[in-house]
Amino acid sequence: MDKVLNYIGKNQKRYLKELTEYLSIPSISTLKTHKTDVARCAGFVSDHLKKIGMKKVKIFKTKGHPIVYGEWMGAPGKPTVLIYGHYDVQPVDPLNLWNSDPFKAVVKDGKIWARGANDNKGQNFIHMKSVEAYMAVEGRLPVNVKFIIEGEEEIGSENLEIFLKHNQKLLKCDAVLISDTSLFAEDQPTISYGLRGLCYMEIEVTGPNKDLHSGSFGGSVANPINELAKIISKLQDNNGKIKIPNFYKDVIPFTKKERENFKTLKFSDGKFAKELGVKELQGEKGYSTVERISARPTLDCNGIVGGFTGEGAKTVLPSKASAKVSMRLVPYQDPVKIAREFKKYVMSIAPKSVKVEVKELHGGLPFYTSFENDYVVAAANALSKAFGRKAVYSREGGSIPIVVEFANQLKAPVILMGLGLDSDNIHSPNEHFHLSNFERGVLSSVYFLKEAEEL
Amino acid sequence: MDKVLNYIGKNQKRYLKELTEYLSIPSISTLKTHKTDVARCAGFVSDHLKKIGMKKVKIFKTKGHPIVYGEWMGAPGKPTVLIYGHYDVQPVDPLNLWNSDPFKAVVKDGKIWARGANDNKGQNFIHMKSVEAYMAVEGRLPVNVKFIIEGEEEIGSENLEIFLKHNQKLLKCDAVLISDTSLFAEDQPTISYGLRGLCYMEIEVTGPNKDLHSGSFGGSVANPINELAKIISKLQDNNGKIKIPNFYKDVIPFTKKERENFKTLKFSDGKFAKELGVKELQGEKGYSTVERISARPTLDCNGIVGGFTGEGAKTVLPSKASAKVSMRLVPYQDPVKIAREFKKYVMSIAPKSVKVEVKELHGGLPFYTSFENDYVVAAANALSKAFGRKAVYSREGGSIPIVVEFANQLKAPVILMGLGLDSDNIHSPNEHFHLSNFERGVLSSVYFLKEAEEL
Repeated sequence: MDKVLNYIGKNQKRYLKELTEYLSIPSISTLKTHKTDVARCAGFVSDHLKKIGMKKVKIFKTKGHPIVYGEWMGAPGKPTVLIYGHYDVQPVDPLNLWNSDPFKAVVKDGKIWARGANDNKGQNFIHMKSVEAYMAVEGRLPVNVKFIIEGEEEIGSENLEIFLKHNQKLLKCDAVLISDTSLFAEDQPTISYGLRGLCYMEIEVTGPNKDLHSGSFGGSVANPINELAKIISKLQDNNGKIKIPNFYKDVIPFTKKERENFKTLKFSDGKFAKELGVKELQGEKGYSTVERISARPTLDCNGIVGGFTGEGAKTVLPSKASAKVSMRLVPYQDPVKIAREFKKYVMSIAPKSVKVEVKELHGGLPFYTSFENDYVVAAANALSKAFGRKAVYSREGGSIPIVVEFANQLKAPVILMGLGLDSDNIHSPNEHFHLSNFERGVLSSVYFLKEAEEL
Repeated sequence: MDKVLNYIGKNQKRYLKELTEYLSIPSISTLKTHKTDVARCAGFVSDHLKKIGMKKVKIFKTKGHPIVYGEWMGAPGKPTVLIYGHYDVQPVDPLNLWNSDPFKAVVKDGKIWARGANDNKGQNFIHMKSVEAYMAVEGRLPVNVKFIIEGEEEIGSENLEIFLKHNQKLLKCDAVLISDTSLFAEDQPTISYGLRGLCYMEIEVTGPNKDLHSGSFGGSVANPINELAKIISKLQDNNGKIKIPNFYKDVIPFTKKERENFKTLKFSDGKFAKELGVKELQGEKGYSTVERISARPTLDCNGIVGGFTGEGAKTVLPSKASAKVSMRLVPYQDPVKIAREFKKYVMSIAPKSVKVEVKELHGGLPFYTSFENDYVVAAANALSKAFGRKAVYSREGGSIPIVVEFANQLKAPVILMGLGLDSDNIHSPNEHFHLSNFERGVLSSVYFLKEAEEL
C-alpha cells in the first residue's frame, strides 16, 4: 500500500500533464460543431484505459456520442466495482468572462482552471490514476474494476440509459462508484447517499375566450391570474407543508441516526441567508435548513406568466395565465403518482368559472442508498483516511437521473464520492478544480479499492 | 319645433355627405406623420362651426394638436350648454382586416363604415347638425351653446386638461354634453351617469439575490412567485370582496331608486357568459352582473411574470416576480388614498423572508352625476322622444379621464348621451356607426336644447 501511495506522490506532475491533455479536447456534447471533438475525447479515454492496464477496452457507438468501456477482472471471488464518469463538457459561453482559455488548462492558486476540470474530467481521471498506480506497483487490483465513461451526461444521458438496459451482464457489479458531486464544505470529505427526484408540472388557467377591457368587464368574470394565484396559494400551508393529498404518503421518515447525522453537518443559517441576500430563511416547519434543502420534499413555482408584462399600465383582463410548478421528491415518492395527485388536487380547488389544464412536463425518481451500506461505509472510511478527517454523510437536493438508472437497473448500491466544491464554477466561466481535492481524490480511490477487497 | 325636425329630415343626405368629408381626413393623433392631417381636421371643424352660425370660432394652438372653440351666446338669461367632442381618431392598423378604405366612408347595411364614424366624429357631428337646423330654421338657439372639439382624446387629452385650467371663464357653462359612449343595448336610449376611476399598482417581490437552482436551494428560502401568489390570493375574499382595509369606506351605497333602476336594464347573464366562453360568471356577492361591471369597485390582476416562462421545464427558483394589479373605483373613492391603503396592506401581509416593493403606476378619479339632476333628466327626456322609447340610466365600467376633468374643473353636471353601440368596432378595423343612431342622435340633440331652455 505504501508503495502505491509513494507512486502517486511521485507521479503527480505527470498526472496533471495528462489531465491537461484530457481537458484540452473541447468535447462539448450539446454543440454539433464539436461532434468530432467529442469522438476524439472518447478515443483519448479509450487509449488511457488501455495504458493503465484495462482489458476489453471498447468504444461503443450510440445514436449520439460514444460510450467508453474497459475492465480488469483479474480478482476472481472479489467484488466488482463499476466506476462511472463522463468525458463530455458544458459549453463555454460567455467566453469573455473566462480569465484563461477554457481548453488550455492553467494551474494557479492551487487550482486547475479549465472547462471540465471538475465536471467531470478531473473527477473521473482520479479513478484512472488510482487504478494506474495499483497496476504499476502491484501488477493487479484488489478488486475487479469496470469503467464506463460516457459522452452525453450534459445532454441527458439518453443513450447510456438504453445502453444500461441492453448490457446488464457486461455491467454487472457489486457497487457503482461515481465522483460527480461536491464536498459538503471545503476540506470536509463527504459521501452523498441520497438525491431528490422531480415532478415538474404546468398549470394553465383560462378565463374569458379573449383578452377583455378590465373597465368594461372587470367584476363580472373570474380573472385567470387571480384564480391561478389562489390555486398556487393553496398548494402549501403556513407551515410550508404541501397540501396535496397523499403527497407525503411514501416519504420514508428520517431515522434517529439519520437526524443525528444531519446535526453533525456544519451549516450556518446566518451565513447562508446572508449569501442569498435574504433577511430570513423560510421552509418546512420542524426541519433544519440542511434537511430542507437535501432530504425533504419541496414545492416551488419555477415560472409564471399572464396578461400584460411590459412597462407601465395596460388595463387588460387576460384570457389566460400559466405557471410552472415543480416538486423535489425524496425516497420513495413516485413522480408519476405525485403528478396524478397534483393534477387531481388542482382540479378540485379550481372554481368552475375558469378552465384549468394541468400537464406533467418532466419527472425523475429520487435516489437513496442507506449510509449503513457496507460499500458506502467503505467509501467513507477511504475518504476519512485520505483527508485525515472523518467523512460526513449528506444528501443532495438536486437530481442526477443517471444515478437512479444505475441503482435501479444494476441493482447495486451507488456511492457518490464527490470531490468538487459548489464554488468550482461548474457550468459557468472559470471552472476549476482544487489540486488538493484531485490529490486526495486519487488517494481516496486507492483506499476504497483496498477497503472493498474485504467485502 | 316641427320646422326644425322637418329641416333635419330633408337634409339627412347632405349631412351624410358632409360627415363623409369629415371622416376622409386621417386625423390620427398618435402618429407624427399625420400631424398636418390633424391640423387640417381642426380647420374643417372650425369652418363647419362658422358655417352653422357659431361665433368667436377659434383654433387654439397647444403643445400638441389644436383645440377648436365656437359659441353662440344669443340667449341671455338662458342656460349655457358646453358640447364636447374630439376630431382625432385611432390608428387603422391592421389595414388588411378592413373591408373598405378607413378614410373613404361607405354606407352599407344601414351603417356608415370608416375610422371615426362612431368615435368620435360621427357623434360630435350630431350636435353640429342639430345646432345648424335650429339656426337655419329659427335664426337662434333655445339656449346658449359652446363647442369645444379637441384633437388629442385618443392620446390622453393632456393639453385639453391644461386648457380647461386656464380658460374656466371662456368655458363657463351650466351643463356639459358629451356623446362619446354607447347605448346600453340596440335601440335602447341611454344616459350614462357614472364612470369608474382607476388605481393601477405594481407589486414586485424579491427573494434570493439571484436565480437559484431549485434542487440545491428549494425548501430553504421563500420563493418570490409563491409569495406573490399568496399576496394576490389575500386581496379578495371568497365572496369577491376586496380585503384592503378602508377600501369601501368612501363608496356611496346604491340608493333604493338606483338599484331599482339597475333592475330595469335588460341584461342576460347566460348570453353574456356564452359570449365570453365561460361556464359561470363570477363576481362580488350580493350584486348583479350589471352592477358589478359598471357601478361596483373591482380588483383585477392585469399581468404577472416571474422565473422561466419559455417552453418546457427549467428548474429555477427565481429571484424576482412581479404583478400588475388594478382596481376600478366608484364614487367617491380616491385613487391616491386607495393606492396608499393598498400598499400598506400588501406590505403588512408579506413575510419577512422576501422584499416587497409596491408602486402606483396610474390613477384616475371616478365620475358621477346624479340621475336626478335636471339636465340629466332633460337629456333622458330628449332621448326618449327621439327614440320613441323610454331612456334608461346606466353607469359605465371604464374610465374617461377628461369627463372627470370637465366635472371637477367646470363644476357643472356632465351628461353622457352616447349614441354608439359596443359592437361598432371603435379602435378596431371596420369601425362603423348606425345611421339610425346618427339620425336619432340629431333629434335627441335638438330635443335636449329645447328641454334645457326651461331649466
